[in-house]
Amino acid sequence: MTRVTADIAVSVDGYSAGPFQSEENPLGEGAIEELHGWMFHHADEHREELDGILEARAYVMGRNMFGPVRGEWTGDWRGWWGPEPPYHGPVFVLTHHPREPVEMEGGTTFFFVTDGVESAIAQAKEAAAGGDVAVAGGADTLNQALAAGLIDELRLHVTPLTLGLGGRTDVVRLFDGVPPLVLEPVRVRSTPQVTHVTYRVG
Amino acid sequence: MTRVTADIAVSVDGYSAGPFQSEENPLGEGAIEELHGWMFHHADEHREELDGILEARAYVMGRNMFGPVRGEWTGDWRGWWGPEPPYHGPVFVLTHHPREPVEMEGGTTFFFVTDGVESAIAQAKEAAAGGDVAVAGGADTLNQALAAGLIDELRLHVTPLTLGLGGRTDVVRLFDGVPPLVLEPVRVRSTPQVTHVTYRVG
Repeated sequence: MTRVTADIAVSVDGYSAGPFQSEENPLGEGAIEELHGWMFHHADEHREELDGILEARAYVMGRNMFGPVRGEWTGDWRGWWGPEPPYHGPVFVLTHHPREPVEMEGGTTFFFVTDGVESAIAQAKEAAAGGDVAVAGGADTLNQALAAGLIDELRLHVTPLTLGLGGRTDVVRLFDGVPPLVLEPVRVRSTPQVTHVTYRVG
Repeated sequence: MTRVTADIAVSVDGYSAGPFQSEENPLGEGAIEELHGWMFHHADEHREELDGILEARAYVMGRNMFGPVRGEWTGDWRGWWGPEPPYHGPVFVLTHHPREPVEMEGGTTFFFVTDGVESAIAQAKEAAAGGDVAVAGGADTLNQALAAGLIDELRLHVTPLTLGLGGRTDVVRLFDGVPPLVLEPVRVRSTPQVTHVTYRVG
């Protein structure tokens, strides 16, 4: 049966991005190196977890994870990942603005979904044809999926730092707006760069 | 040299207590069993971590951790722990209201400190005479100590659940109001009931 998984890199205080996202700073100011250094600079030590992020057959992501464009689609933005994104399968991008699918090299196609996270995950499940579906982020999209009870397995990659953003209203924190959850830890592994914790969602 | 440590049990979304604390519900509604079941019902499996909580020579705690009394001291509240509290040493309780020290059986004495967390930790260091000082909680007191740069080692006991309180203003979350921290994971151990993560605070 199709599992719906979600991977997200977070600080110890629960943030997956900083404020002021832009094309130059896709994860917001100050956060990209700190939260993702383990994957950029220490990939070999975290191969199993990195492989897990890309093992699904179909993906769902929020528009901010797809790109910095806001409002109506302008130009021809095709994601942060260059001509051959690492997904090699269908990626359903949540947006309020319709757009034709964008086919990339290597099997990745971006589909744009305007009727919400439940619809996006349902479409991804159908596309996955029995394989896993992964919610690829960011925190806002993941919170919507958690609140709707659609995540089976949550994989946190906790970096050993805090961003100190508590009280800011312009930055989403993981679990904001999500009702209480019962979780079951199924895997924990820690390195100097990151603590990986996988939870089954009850 | 004296280390200042802090142990705190938190949900995955960063809460160490629920709302509506009272004498009947010292940790607030709904949270005590969920956050502390691992210590109440599974003590044997977590002996090393439980021993660590009580290995300091002097302690600092917030008033809400000491008791449910608010405002001026009335009656003769002597803590939640009965005639012989588990601290067996001096405990410095942060409060806005002066009170004479309260001597308990087994070596625990509660001292009441009205001039802030830095003073409380300084007094505890002097009392510890080279031994460790532990900030025993709750989250508000720990946040003050973290913000003041006074914690050397932070030991999180993360229970596999979320309380879903995001957005509430009557419940303190761990790291609220604390500037960005650089941490170093020095120990991680997980059981079905709780994931223990110890960080050295940079």
